[in-house]
Amino acid sequence: MIVDVKQYMQQLGQQARAAGREISKAESGRKNSALLKIAEAIAAGSAEIASENRKDLAAGKQNGMDPASLDRLELTPARIQAMIEGLKQVAALPDPVGEITNLNYQPSGIQVGQMRVPLGVIGIIYESRPNVTVDAAALCLKSGNACILRGGSESIHSNRAIAVCIASGLAAAGLPQQAVQVVETTDRAAVGELITMQDYVDVIVPRGGKSLIERISGEATIPVIKHLDGICHVYIDGKADLDKAVAIAMNAKTHRYGVCNAMETLLVAESIAATVLPILAEQYAAKNVELRGCLKTCSLIKNAVRATEEDWHTEYLAPILSIKIVADIDEAIAHINTYSSAHTEAIVTEDYTLARRFLREVDSSSVMVNASTRFADGFEYGLGAEIGISTDKLHARGPVGLHGLTSLKFIVLGDGHIRQ
Amino acid sequence: MIVDVKQYMQQLGQQARAAGREISKAESGRKNSALLKIAEAIAAGSAEIASENRKDLAAGKQNGMDPASLDRLELTPARIQAMIEGLKQVAALPDPVGEITNLNYQPSGIQVGQMRVPLGVIGIIYESRPNVTVDAAALCLKSGNACILRGGSESIHSNRAIAVCIASGLAAAGLPQQAVQVVETTDRAAVGELITMQDYVDVIVPRGGKSLIERISGEATIPVIKHLDGICHVYIDGKADLDKAVAIAMNAKTHRYGVCNAMETLLVAESIAATVLPILAEQYAAKNVELRGCLKTCSLIKNAVRATEEDWHTEYLAPILSIKIVADIDEAIAHINTYSSAHTEAIVTEDYTLARRFLREVDSSSVMVNASTRFADGFEYGLGAEIGISTDKLHARGPVGLHGLTSLKFIVLGDGHIRQ
Repeated sequence: MIVDVKQYMQQLGQQARAAGREISKAESGRKNSALLKIAEAIAAGSAEIASENRKDLAAGKQNGMDPASLDRLELTPARIQAMIEGLKQVAALPDPVGEITNLNYQPSGIQVGQMRVPLGVIGIIYESRPNVTVDAAALCLKSGNACILRGGSESIHSNRAIAVCIASGLAAAGLPQQAVQVVETTDRAAVGELITMQDYVDVIVPRGGKSLIERISGEATIPVIKHLDGICHVYIDGKADLDKAVAIAMNAKTHRYGVCNAMETLLVAESIAATVLPILAEQYAAKNVELRGCLKTCSLIKNAVRATEEDWHTEYLAPILSIKIVADIDEAIAHINTYSSAHTEAIVTEDYTLARRFLREVDSSSVMVNASTRFADGFEYGLGAEIGISTDKLHARGPVGLHGLTSLKFIVLGDGHIRQ
Repeated sequence: MIVDVKQYMQQLGQQARAAGREISKAESGRKNSALLKIAEAIAAGSAEIASENRKDLAAGKQNGMDPASLDRLELTPARIQAMIEGLKQVAALPDPVGEITNLNYQPSGIQVGQMRVPLGVIGIIYESRPNVTVDAAALCLKSGNACILRGGSESIHSNRAIAVCIASGLAAAGLPQQAVQVVETTDRAAVGELITMQDYVDVIVPRGGKSLIERISGEATIPVIKHLDGICHVYIDGKADLDKAVAIAMNAKTHRYGVCNAMETLLVAESIAATVLPILAEQYAAKNVELRGCLKTCSLIKNAVRATEEDWHTEYLAPILSIKIVADIDEAIAHINTYSSAHTEAIVTEDYTLARRFLREVDSSSVMVNASTRFADGFEYGLGAEIGISTDKLHARGPVGLHGLTSLKFIVLGDGHIRQ
């Protein structure tokens, strides 16, 4: 029983800081060994994890948790296996820590370069999915950071069981167990402490619904790596290839609805609208996607209702799509710059010059040509994994992988050099 | 006369945002042309600038400004020439904007890379030195950012005169004049607005004394690139070359006293202390450097008084040095991790393994081997110029040049690719 939450969190913080110093200098082989030992411990403990998970599921049902949340909470054998595979994948990634780049001689004779270094201690705050416990721990460990993991109270039994496996893996590899600490209390005050312990925590990564992230970034006194919305756009240019345009517009909207990289607004060049929109309207109708269009859109297709100003601002996360016909790329970019959440935007075009302009001028964390917005993802980008997505401008933009959990310090090599 | 400061600053912000969009896509040649046209305008307007500067100097004297501040405020012909040279140097630097790196094919067939992009709008808050107006404007312009410059009220006439030259240079190159805006009011409320206009300003760079920077970073709701202290250490290892150790320890402390990269604490390995400290004590005495040592130091050299705990925490910015004898590199690193402000630390050693350890394990923005801490500087590092130094961990560490005013977005090139 944790009585004093502040004191408890401060203690976690101090332990994390100390463990972070150790883990930051740990050899790559040792970190990889820890990841594989954790995978072994999870495999060996899968029955125990499943049993603890059933307690969370039972409590969730009793508390009237909705089916989608219950689904996210459940650790099926396949999901436990995916956690194990994820650990092996992170172990196989190159170690970012200590990488030295741009080491060049300067006129004074000193060599100056940059070394990639861990950030220190990462605080991760997340909801229902207990597999985040393993995924986040793996990325922090590999990138040489200690972490404090604060999962939702609804998954506390699952998270504790996973924490036991992580601790045993770290110990088996000879690394400090406090490099990964799971907050053992469900008291919400623990979050308030975590996001204000500047002395012990270097960055916060919240994962969950928009309201959770808004609350955390509003109250945190520590930098937060986050995205709030995914109001993603696809612009079908007048020079688009029709087949590519239809394939991408369908995939970006209907591949999955409740994800941040799904398209929410389709922009269509006036010159191609009469050709492409009827085809799309039919295919969306077959998938029961509700269409909300501008005046011109509604005059071209039957199954669209009028969009309001509110629609252009809305991340539906549902089978709903807003559609706007624009004069050209200028209007498309202006619309995106006004309404986008700076997550992901794509152009469909065969025009070289317009593709080049779109890439340069659209100020979002991912900008694409002739590809579905659904590709905005750490795995698809070859990052190996992602701890989150950032739509902020400083430090990291887009999917945040191992590199986003590191920074660069300068190193200087001399031979007794002094400043003249 | 500016009546409503909030409204005035909001207007500057809106204009900066719009100009930032333009400047972010400006061709390199056009930005360089603007920099050179500003240099021409300053050369042509140097008499006017000097005359306005004399008004500030007269007001400063009348207000009892101290001689050091008056010196910083003065724009001598040499300093005006240095501003012109600085503009030419920034024009000659490679354009960081639009650089694409790591563009690789992924298993899905898409190409994924990163493009370097401006941050948007930079707010710069600085004291007395009016040359910062030009230096900061040049770096922001070259990196594709709009900026809002808020100099001290004591340099308002100088800054206004320089602003006229900047505006005419921008106009001559066909770039929006509002890409560089100088705050025309000396009302302190303007700073409060600037550091909280999240919609219009992406990052704040404060330059000046610690109290200014503390106040700004405490009140800002926008990310701040900053350093507060420069409590820099030199560690003379037992395997140090004696000549290098003496040269570096003298240079790091006495080359200039009032700078953030000056050494404040000297750590000496016990095994070499009796050899090196008497030599250093004599040389420091010749330069009138006050020495404050640990008990062992005071037993080895005559001219040291006892250091208190407070000394290890102090950035003297003066001819004062604290000295501590440590058992070995472990104690040195532990001391640094406890007392350093994470600015710059150096080891003097001929030992390969210890040099390698120091580089990896010391968590400061610059870490050096056999070189004076005084090298921690954007020019010395080959960055071309620096807008400030960061001791924070996210985004940029150490001297911040053009790259620190940019970020990386992801770009994806496909051929109609959709997610499976």
